Amino acid sequence: MEFRTDMALERRDIYKKANDIEDEIPGIETEENEDGENIRITKVKITNEQGEKALGKPIGDYVTIDTKNLKYASEDDIERVAINLSLRLQEIMNKHITKEDDILVVGLGNMASTPDSLGPKVIQDIDITRHLIKYAPQYLENGVRPVSAISPGVLGTTGIETQEILQGIIQNVKPKIVVVIDSLASKSIERISSSIQISDTGIVPGGGVDNARKELSKKTLGIPVIAIGVPMVVEAATIAVESIDLYISHMQQKAKSNEHLNCLKDEDKYTIIKEALAEEKYNLIVTPKEIDDLIENMSSIVARGINKSL
Amino acid sequence: MEFRTDMALERRDIYKKANDIEDEIPGIETEENEDGENIRITKVKITNEQGEKALGKPIGDYVTIDTKNLKYASEDDIERVAINLSLRLQEIMNKHITKEDDILVVGLGNMASTPDSLGPKVIQDIDITRHLIKYAPQYLENGVRPVSAISPGVLGTTGIETQEILQGIIQNVKPKIVVVIDSLASKSIERISSSIQISDTGIVPGGGVDNARKELSKKTLGIPVIAIGVPMVVEAATIAVESIDLYISHMQQKAKSNEHLNCLKDEDKYTIIKEALAEEKYNLIVTPKEIDDLIENMSSIVARGINKSL
Amino acid sequence: MEFRTDMALERRDIYKKANDIEDEIPGIETEENEDGENIRITKVKITNEQGEKALGKPIGDYVTIDTKNLKYASEDDIERVAINLSLRLQEIMNKHITKEDDILVVGLGNMASTPDSLGPKVIQDIDITRHLIKYAPQYLENGVRPVSAISPGVLGTTGIETQEILQGIIQNVKPKIVVVIDSLASKSIERISSSIQISDTGIVPGGGVDNARKELSKKTLGIPVIAIGVPMVVEAATIAVESIDLYISHMQQKAKSNEHLNCLKDEDKYTIIKEALAEEKYNLIVTPKEIDDLIENMSSIVARGINKSL
Amino acid sequence: MEFRTDMALERRDIYKKANDIEDEIPGIETEENEDGENIRITKVKITNEQGEKALGKPIGDYVTIDTKNLKYASEDDIERVAINLSLRLQEIMNKHITKEDDILVVGLGNMASTPDSLGPKVIQDIDITRHLIKYAPQYLENGVRPVSAISPGVLGTTGIETQEILQGIIQNVKPKIVVVIDSLASKSIERISSSIQISDTGIVPGGGVDNARKELSKKTLGIPVIAIGVPMVVEAATIAVESIDLYISHMQQKAKSNEHLNCLKDEDKYTIIKEALAEEKYNLIVTPKEIDDLIENMSSIVARGINKSL
Repeated sequence: MEFRTDMALERRDIYKKANDIEDEIPGIETEENEDGENIRITKVKITNEQGEKALGKPIGDYVTIDTKNLKYASEDDIERVAINLSLRLQEIMNKHITKEDDILVVGLGNMASTPDSLGPKVIQDIDITRHLIKYAPQYLENGVRPVSAISPGVLGTTGIETQEILQGIIQNVKPKIVVVIDSLASKSIERISSSIQISDTGIVPGGGVDNARKELSKKTLGIPVIAIGVPMVVEAATIAVESIDLYISHMQQKAKSNEHLNCLKDEDKYTIIKEALAEEKYNLIVTPKEIDDLIENMSSIVARGINKSL
Repeated sequence: MEFRTDMALERRDIYKKANDIEDEIPGIETEENEDGENIRITKVKITNEQGEKALGKPIGDYVTIDTKNLKYASEDDIERVAINLSLRLQEIMNKHITKEDDILVVGLGNMASTPDSLGPKVIQDIDITRHLIKYAPQYLENGVRPVSAISPGVLGTTGIETQEILQGIIQNVKPKIVVVIDSLASKSIERISSSIQISDTGIVPGGGVDNARKELSKKTLGIPVIAIGVPMVVEAATIAVESIDLYISHMQQKAKSNEHLNCLKDEDKYTIIKEALAEEKYNLIVTPKEIDDLIENMSSIVARGINKSL
Repeated sequence: MEFRTDMALERRDIYKKANDIEDEIPGIETEENEDGENIRITKVKITNEQGEKALGKPIGDYVTIDTKNLKYASEDDIERVAINLSLRLQEIMNKHITKEDDILVVGLGNMASTPDSLGPKVIQDIDITRHLIKYAPQYLENGVRPVSAISPGVLGTTGIETQEILQGIIQNVKPKIVVVIDSLASKSIERISSSIQISDTGIVPGGGVDNARKELSKKTLGIPVIAIGVPMVVEAATIAVESIDLYISHMQQKAKSNEHLNCLKDEDKYTIIKEALAEEKYNLIVTPKEIDDLIENMSSIVARGINKSL
Repeated sequence: MEFRTDMALERRDIYKKANDIEDEIPGIETEENEDGENIRITKVKITNEQGEKALGKPIGDYVTIDTKNLKYASEDDIERVAINLSLRLQEIMNKHITKEDDILVVGLGNMASTPDSLGPKVIQDIDITRHLIKYAPQYLENGVRPVSAISPGVLGTTGIETQEILQGIIQNVKPKIVVVIDSLASKSIERISSSIQISDTGIVPGGGVDNARKELSKKTLGIPVIAIGVPMVVEAATIAVESIDLYISHMQQKAKSNEHLNCLKDEDKYTIIKEALAEEKYNLIVTPKEIDDLIENMSSIVARGINKSL
C-alpha cells in the first residue's frame, strides 16, 4: 500500500477502510483522549511485526495531538496544547534517559521558506543551557540538564545531507538523545501546521517537504531519536485524487448508478496523476494561505512544549 | 466565462480554445518576441470593448515576459530579463509622465509568508531618492527623479485595506504615477514566480494570493497605476480540474471511445470541486517546493528592472 | 540644557544634579513603585510650564517601567512586566477614548536592522480586529473594539516621512487614538531594550535611532498620540563623555587634587567630541551585544501589554 | 602590546607608531595597490618569527581590501570589489588545493542580529554544487568542484562551540579546505562592513562580535582554513579612548602647552575605561546606524567574490 501520509493515525484509518476492518488491525492498539473541545490526543501503538507491516512504520508508539482552529488560538489554547505536548514528551524521554542527561534538539527545514520554516523557528525559542553550565552557571538553577540545539539547514542550501551533519555533531557533542522537529506529509489539509505526532522510532525518509533526507534514527545516529513531526504538506496529487473522488460521487448522485463511474473510482488514479503533474518538473506542495499564522502559533507550542519537558 | 487566471495571455488562449477561434479574437492584437532561448515576450493588446468583454479585462496593453528555468538562472540570465522588463516599463511610463516626475513604488504582499513575499522583497532593493534629494543631494546625480516606496502590508496583519492606505499616502506624497508589484493567479505552475505581466490598467481585484483587495487604479487612486504582476498562485481547484482532464484522457485512450467520459469532460467540474474543497475552510494555494529560490531570483529581476527604468 | 536623553526620568535626575536641587524640581512631581525585585515603576508628572521648561518636555505624565536582567527573564517575569504596561496604558487611554473606539497601533523602526526592529516586531504580534469585525465577526466576542496596525518603515527605505504616511492613513481609517511604539535615546546602557516610557504627549522629534522624524502628536495628526518608548540607543559621544569623566575621576584619585583636571571636568566635552566623531561621516550607535535577545523579550512584553489593554 | 584590532594592517600601523619606526618593521613586508579611487588593496606579509611577535599574528599573508563609501556603492563598484576579492582568494586557494577539490564555506555569526549577520547572509548566496553533482548533474557544467556551505550559528543560540560543530562536519564531509566568513574587530569605524581581510592562517580567537569562539585553523580542523574577515565591531572602550585623545588635543590647542594633559595622554586609558564600562555587565559594541545597508552591499560582494573564485 502507498499511504502518502507520514502520520500513523491516518495510515491506520486508510488501512482499515481499504481492508474493511471494523475493529482494530491486528498488531495495532489505539487509545483516544480529549482535552476540552479543541484538543484531541490519539495514541497508535504498533505492537508487533504484523502491525509494522500493515502501517509500514516501525514498532513503537505514535502519539498525535490534533488542535482545532489553531489560526485563531488564544494564548490559553496555545499553553494547553504545549502542556499536552510536554507531558507526552516527558513520558517518552523517561524511557530512554535520566533527568540530567544531555539533549540535542534539531530543527529541520529552511528558514527562508515559510511552509518549511517550523524547525528553525522552534530552535530560536529553545532554552539552551549547555554553554551556560560552562560559562555562566550563576544564571541557572542547580541540576539543570545540558541542552544544545541546531538548525542544520536543508540539502539545497548546504549541499550536505542532514544525516552527515548530525553524525559529526553527535560525535563531538555526545548528547544522550536527539529530539528532531520535522515536517510531515499528511492527507488532510486540516492537519497542516495544526497536528503534532510524537514518536521515538526516528524519522523514516521520504516524508514532509524535503524528501531527499536520509533516515535519522538510533541505527544511523547511535542514540535514540525522538521525532516531533508536524504535517506541513499535502501533495498536489493527493488533493487531485480526492477531488476526483468527490467529483465522481457528485456525478453518481446525479446519474444514479453508473458502471463506468464505478470503474473510475477503483482505478489507481494516484500514479497516473502523479506522473502527469511530474512532467511539469516542479515539486508541487499545497498549503493553506494562512500558513504563516499557523506556523507562528505551532512554533510557539512546540518550543514551549519542549522547554517545559526539559 | 470564469478564467481563473489574471494573465491576459492565458485568458486569450483559453478564450480561443473554448470558442474554437483559429486566428485572433476580434478586439485583440498579439505580438510575440524572443530574446535568446529562455526569454519570450508576448504583448496582448485589448483594442476595443469587444476584446474587453472577451477577456474580462480593461482596454490596454498587457506585456508578458516568460522566463524558463529561472531556478537555475545565471547572473547573466537575470540581468537580461531585468533589461527586458526595464525597456517595457520605460515604454509604458513614457506614455504617462516625464523624466522628472515623482514615482511611488508599492510592494503588495506579506514578508512573513514566502509565497507572498515578492512585493516587500522588491521594495527593499528599490533605489529610493525622494529623501536624498532633500537631505543628501550631494550623493545624487543632477536631475534624478524623486522615487519613494512602501510595503503597506496585507489586510490580515494591518486590518486596513491597501486601497485606504495608498489613498492616504498619495494625498500627502503627491506622486505622478504608482508602480505596483503584485501577485497574480495563473493557470500554469510553470509560470509561478517565473513570468511577469506589465500593464497600465491598474489591478482588478480578486487576483493573486490576497483576494480581499479593492481595486487599485486611476479611478480609485487618482493617478495612473502601472502593475507589475507575477503569478504566485495556482488554485488547488485548478490543479484538480486539470488532473481530472488528464485522468479522463488517460482513461479514454485505454477504453477507446466512451460516452460517459465525454460527458464528464464537459461538465463544470470547477464549481463542484471548488465548493467541495471550500468546505475544509482553508484557502488552499499550490506552490512549487522551490518557491524560495524562484522568489529570490524574481525579486532581483523586478528590482533591477524598475531601478534601470527610473 | 542639552540632555541627550528622551526619558523624562533621566532628565529630571540630570536637572536636579546640575542645579543642586535636593527635593523636587518646581513643576515636577514624582512617584515610585516596585513590583518585586526586578520591576520598578516611576511616574514623572510635569505639572506646569516651569516643569516643562526645566525638562524640555510638554506638560503630561511620563511613566517609566524599568526591568532588571531582561536578557535572562523567565516567562513569568515577561508576563508581569506586560501586565504592568497594560495597566498603565489602560489608565492613559481611559482619559481619551471609550472602550469601543477605534485604535491604530504604529510600529516605528526598521525590521532589517536589529537595534531598530522593535516597532515592526511588536506590530507582528498585535491582535488586529478591524478587518475581522467586517469580514469574519464570528471569530470575535461581542463589543470588540476595532484595532488596526501598521509599520510604516523608515525614511531611508521609503523616502517618505513617517508623519506624511500617518497623516494619510489617519484621514482614511479615522481612528480615535494612535499608539506609537518608538525607540528612544537614553543615557544609560542598562536601560537599552529594558525600560519602557509611556506618555500621552506625542513624540518630540530628535530621539532614538531615526532622528529625521517629524513630530507625531495631536497637533500634527489631529488625534491623541500615546507613545510607548523604549530606549534603544546611547550615543557614542555620550559613552565617550562618561568615559572621560570616569577617567578623570580615576586620575584625580591617584593624583589627589588637580586644578587642570577639574577644569577638564567642567568643559563642554560633549559638543567637541560629537563634532570630532561626526567628521567620520557615520552616525554611531552603541548597543549591547545581546541586543537580539533583549529585543525578543521586550517585543513580547510590549505586544502583550498592548493586547491586554485593548 | 594590546592591539584591540584583528586587522594585520592596523596592527602594523599601531606598532610602527608606538615604536617610532619609520621604515618597515623587521619581519614584515607591505605592498599597496589601488583600483580606481574607491578601492585600495594592501598586503601585509609576516615573514618570520620576529614579525609574528611584533604583530601578534602567525606567519602568513594578510590582504586587506578597503572600499570607500560602500553605503552608496553602485552595482559597478560592488562588482569591482567582488572581482578583486575573487582574484586574491584564487591566489591563496591555488597554494593549497587543485581546481576540483571539495570546498566547505562556513558563515559565522547570528542571522537574528544585524551587526552579526554577515556570515549567514553570504552563505545564502553561495552557489552550492555538492548535492547537485550527485542528484542533478544535468544542471552543472563538467568539472564543477563540489561546494558545500553551512551557518553553524553562535554559541549563545546553539550551546555548542563552532569548533565542535565544524570538526564533526569535516570528519563526515571531508572537504580539502575551509573558507570561513568571519567578523573582526577593528579600530576604525570607517572600516566597519567596508573592508575585507583575507588570510590563510586560520582565525585566532577573541576577535569580532562573538569572542567565545575557539581557534579555527589547520591545527584544530586538520585542513587549511582561509579566513575572509570583515570588521564589524569597534569596541566602545576604543571609541572612548580615541575620544579622550581628540579631546585632549583640543584642550592643548586652546591651552597651548600643558604638562598634565601630556601625562594624561600617555596613561593606559584603555584598561581603566574598559573596566569602568565592564561594570555595567553588558558587552557594548559600536556600530554605524547604516549597518543594514553596509551589510547588504558587503554580503553581496563577499558572496560574488567567493562564487567567482570557485
